[in-house]
Order: sequence, then structure tokens, then C-alpha cells
Amino acid sequence: MSIDWLADPIPASDRDARLAALQRQMQLTKPAGALGRLEALAVRLAGLQRCVCPQLERVRIVVFAADHGVAAAGVSAYPQAVTAEMVRNFARGGAAISVLARTLGAELEVVNVGTVAALEPLAGVIDARVGPGTANFVRAPAMSDEQLEQALAAGRTAAERAMLAGAQLFIGGEMGIGNTTAAAALAAALLGLPTAELVGPGTGLDAAGVAAKIRIVDAALARAQAATPLAALRELGGFEIAALAAAYLAAAQRGVPSLVDGFITSVAALVALRMQPELADWLLFAHRSAEPGHRHVLAACAAEPLLELGLRLGEGSGAALALPLLRSACTLHGEMATFAEAGVSQA
Amino acid sequence: MSIDWLADPIPASDRDARLAALQRQMQLTKPAGALGRLEALAVRLAGLQRCVCPQLERVRIVVFAADHGVAAAGVSAYPQAVTAEMVRNFARGGAAISVLARTLGAELEVVNVGTVAALEPLAGVIDARVGPGTANFVRAPAMSDEQLEQALAAGRTAAERAMLAGAQLFIGGEMGIGNTTAAAALAAALLGLPTAELVGPGTGLDAAGVAAKIRIVDAALARAQAATPLAALRELGGFEIAALAAAYLAAAQRGVPSLVDGFITSVAALVALRMQPELADWLLFAHRSAEPGHRHVLAACAAEPLLELGLRLGEGSGAALALPLLRSACTLHGEMATFAEAGVSQA
Repeated sequence: MSIDWLADPIPASDRDARLAALQRQMQLTKPAGALGRLEALAVRLAGLQRCVCPQLERVRIVVFAADHGVAAAGVSAYPQAVTAEMVRNFARGGAAISVLARTLGAELEVVNVGTVAALEPLAGVIDARVGPGTANFVRAPAMSDEQLEQALAAGRTAAERAMLAGAQLFIGGEMGIGNTTAAAALAAALLGLPTAELVGPGTGLDAAGVAAKIRIVDAALARAQAATPLAALRELGGFEIAALAAAYLAAAQRGVPSLVDGFITSVAALVALRMQPELADWLLFAHRSAEPGHRHVLAACAAEPLLELGLRLGEGSGAALALPLLRSACTLHGEMATFAEAGVSQA
Repeated sequence: MSIDWLADPIPASDRDARLAALQRQMQLTKPAGALGRLEALAVRLAGLQRCVCPQLERVRIVVFAADHGVAAAGVSAYPQAVTAEMVRNFARGGAAISVLARTLGAELEVVNVGTVAALEPLAGVIDARVGPGTANFVRAPAMSDEQLEQALAAGRTAAERAMLAGAQLFIGGEMGIGNTTAAAALAAALLGLPTAELVGPGTGLDAAGVAAKIRIVDAALARAQAATPLAALRELGGFEIAALAAAYLAAAQRGVPSLVDGFITSVAALVALRMQPELADWLLFAHRSAEPGHRHVLAACAAEPLLELGLRLGEGSGAALALPLLRSACTLHGEMATFAEAGVSQA
């Protein structure tokens, strides 16, 4: 196995398609600019899909699930067993992302990158366990080099499966008790911001719990040296975060944009952007979550998310909620009449 | 004809349904509050629909179109003929709201409350012309008492048609060259704010155009005395704005909530709220538009819109774009598994 593929080139957006799409936007029966950010989105997607009228009918949602050794430090309001229980809930269709995927007609795949215990075979769940959760990164690197490679490969192959199924957009989600702690530690290492700016209540810690979480992340940062994004992933990351970063890169390398969800997925996107800045074109950001550190991570990604609804669920749910806006941007762009077609006078 | 119906009582939200919905929210497989504003929306809709699991499958969109005498003063970037031309575009399916209604599976009805010239019969367009546009309200009241009554009745009957068709949500839209000027004048009269805070570029005026528009609104406000919301509508309103205010009231009187679109519809909502403050429960606000006066009107309505995407199109398009969020709030609320059903541990 190798990680050389991470550096494979990411294609550039097609300028001719963007210009043609912009031209079309100016002829649609509305004042220029009246559809606000949806106009720029349609033009941007035209460039990425290399066609005048982009489409987002076929969307693949992949939720990566994994456990975190740092959960032993009591950083979550929920017991660690919930990671595996929620994988079963995804498979049975009862989780938020299951409901949203059905509503959207999007394919949902769950990839188990490392629950503490192996799971029985479950429909729609791919077993790609890298290990029984990460190590507690307060005391040791979260994962070995080999585990990191395997987690990255799990993300890449998930993106490849999505492309083979014809996905026009990739949505990554995550599930893992303790993973806002890992994401905050990673973000602190990459951004050099005070830990307190990046640590939040996650699934519902009180103020004392957040204070303890900050001390745990500080201890991890004091232990770990991470000169590169990959080193930071190995020292402080999670299997699902590594898989997400890899999936964003792999999708972009194959010419498919991704819609980034919330705090943890945005940290994965930040890691990937630090590896390849050319990825920026291919990442759309869905929402600004209630987790307080998210705004710093979004700013570091130069992201302007579409929604701000106080969401803090993960699973890809915020991205799924933003998808109809992207689809509407495409449908309006493709189906509205031009001034000439409709016989409407121009300004 | 009478306007006494405007004061007919508006039912209260059902407290038992809200409490039962809140109870259900706490049992769904997610941290409490993790779906942010969508949770409160589901609970609120439960109270309005008087059931634990509200639904928004059947949605009626009504676009009210009318012309404005003040257009003669050159307040729009577009010629007045565009109002009628856009009605034809709605009917043929080429306008933004036509595309969105199709995508959403929502019924679209267009009500011509007063284009300058009568229109040929058009599929999906109801002829309810009150007059050949309003008078130029810089010089005279925009409409007569009788015209006001007729415009209000057009809104009421549109809401009644929606209810007869089983609509679970009402979306009002508008089309009328010059109607941001009427809306700004109405808002200034009702809110007592400086005109310059409420007048904006509309479909695309430059700075000089906006300055001229401010002077025109100031002249109208100097002429018109309006002690009541109805008097303000008659002096400064438009037929479509009156119809929208009436439709919001009539829908609420019949127990159906409305999703308010942009600047002009929000001014109509403000007028209706000034007539019956109990309407507040029944109005959901879709987005904060790019028209600068909108934020003042939203604040006066105590509204927290769902989206902010720089939209400034009208037609009901912003409400249509927000509808999937409301629908997702309901679907998640109704279809997610509970902790007990899914065997997931609680915090």
C-alpha cells in the first residue's frame, strides 16, 4: 500500500464551461444577480462538471464510522457503544441521515473504519475496520502509519465506488463518539489557535465537561509533534477523519465535487486542503454548525457555507439539508426560460 | 362586499400537540437539540397542524401580479410591460417560481389582481383584475376603497381555493414592476423609519436611481395620511400587496400556516400583523433578501428567516427554496427512530 496517490493532480475547473454558464445566467428571465448565491453556485458547478448546465441528480452519501481511544477520558456525553449502535441505526434506516437520504433519493453507504468491536454483517455497511478504535492520543499516537494508510485507502475506495455508481456529488458524513475532541485537537495543531477556541460541547457537554475536554486536548498537543497534515492525522486524528480527507481528495482527482457537512468533516477538509490547496475549487460547504470551533475551521478553508441553522448532529445531515439548494441552483439554471424564449423585455 | 372578515378570529396553536411533539423530539436518535432550528420548527408546525407529526406534502404557491402607477416615475430598471410578460412566463413554466414549483411538486396559481391591460386567458392564471394598475401614489391614493376591498377579497379567495385543495402550507409570491417602491413606502409609513433605510435597488437601480426613488417615496409620504394599516394600503399599497396581506390572514383563520418570501411579501405580512397580531404564530419567514429594507421589516415582524443567500427575485422563489428545510424538519421528526426503537444508548 502507498500514500503516493494523495499527491495525484486535481483537475482545474473548466473556464469555457463557466463562461458559457455565466452567459446563460444573464439571459434567464430574472434581473441579473436576483438569485444571489445560487447563480454563482450554478456557474461554479458548470465549471466543475465541464458543461453549461450542471446536474446533481445522482448523489452519494458515505458515512464513515470509527471509535476513538480518547473517549476513555470521558469527553462525550454518550457511551462509546453508541458508535456501533448508530451504525446499526443507519443500516435500519432510523437515523437522521437515513431519513434525509431517502427523502433526497441519494444513495447512503456506511463504512465502518474502526468500531471498537467488529460488527455483524449489516446491509449497506462496508466493513473496512482499520483497528478497534484509535489509541488514546493523550498518551500515544492515535494510529500507526499502517493504520493511517488503511484509513486513507478506505476513504479513497469509498470515493471510487461513488464515482463508479455515477455520483455527480459526494457527501461525506461521520459517526464516532469522541470525534469532536479529535477534530478540535487536529484543528488546533493545524491552525495554531488556542484550544479553547476550537473545543465545544460536542453532543452536549456542560461547561465543566468542556473545560475538561480543553485540558485533554492541551495534553495531547503537548505530547504530539506534527510537522505535516499527515503527521497530525496520525497523532491526533481518527480513522473516519482520515478517510474523509482522503475521500475529498480522491473525488476531486476524479472530477467530482464534494459537499462538506459540519465541524468534523470540515476539519477533514482542512487537512486535505493542507495537502493539496487545489482541492479548494472542489469543496462546497453546507452549513455553519453550532459547534463553536467550526467558524474558525470554515474561515481557514475560506468557506462561505449556505446554511446556519444551529445544527450539530454530523452524519452528513447538514450537507443533506443543503443539497436541495444546490439542486435548485442547477434546475433553475437549466430550466428557466431566457428573455428571448419568453418574450420578456430586458432592463 | 365587506372587509369585516379581516377581523375574524385566528385560532391558537395547539399546546398539547406541541408538548407531544417536543416529547417525541427528545426520544429521537440524536443528541437533544442537535437538529437546531429544525427541531423547534417541527414542534411549532405540530401545534399549528394540531397533530404530533406535521406534514407539508401539499403546498400551494400563489403569485399575485399587479401594476403600479408609480412606475411612471421611473422607479424600476424594467419597463412596466414586464409585469404582464412575466405572467405569461409563469403560465408557460419558464419563470423561476414555475421551475421551483415543479421541482417541489407544489401547485402554482397566478392571480392577476391588476395588470395595466387585461390579459388573454392563460392556463393557471386567474383573472381578478381590480383595475388597470394602481394610481401613482405620489399624486393620489393608490386605490379606492372599493378597489382595496376587491384586492383583499382576491387574496382571501385565493387562500380559500388553496384550503379547498387541501394545502398544508400557503406560499404567497408577487410580481409587479414598481412594487419595491410601494412596499418601501408602506413600510416607512408603518414603521416610522427614515425612507432611506427602506428604499433599495429593487430589480437593479444604480445609486442615482435609488436616490430618486427615495425622493419619490418621501413625496408620497408627505401627501398621504394613513392612520391605520388599511389606510396605508389604500394610500401607498399595491393590489398584490393587499391581496397577500389578506391571504395570510385568511389562511391563518382557516388553520393553515404561510411561508413568507422576501421584501414585498414581508411588508404585506407586516400590514396583516398590524391588523391582527395573533397572525404571528402562523407566519414562517423564509429568507433575508438582498433588498436592504428587508431586515427592518423582518425585525418589525420579529422574524428569524431560515436562509440568507442574497436573493432578490420575489415571485415566492425564496420561500420555495426554503420549503425543503421545512419539509425535512417534518420528515425527520416523523420518520427518525427513537432510542428505544433503535436500541441506542442515551446520554
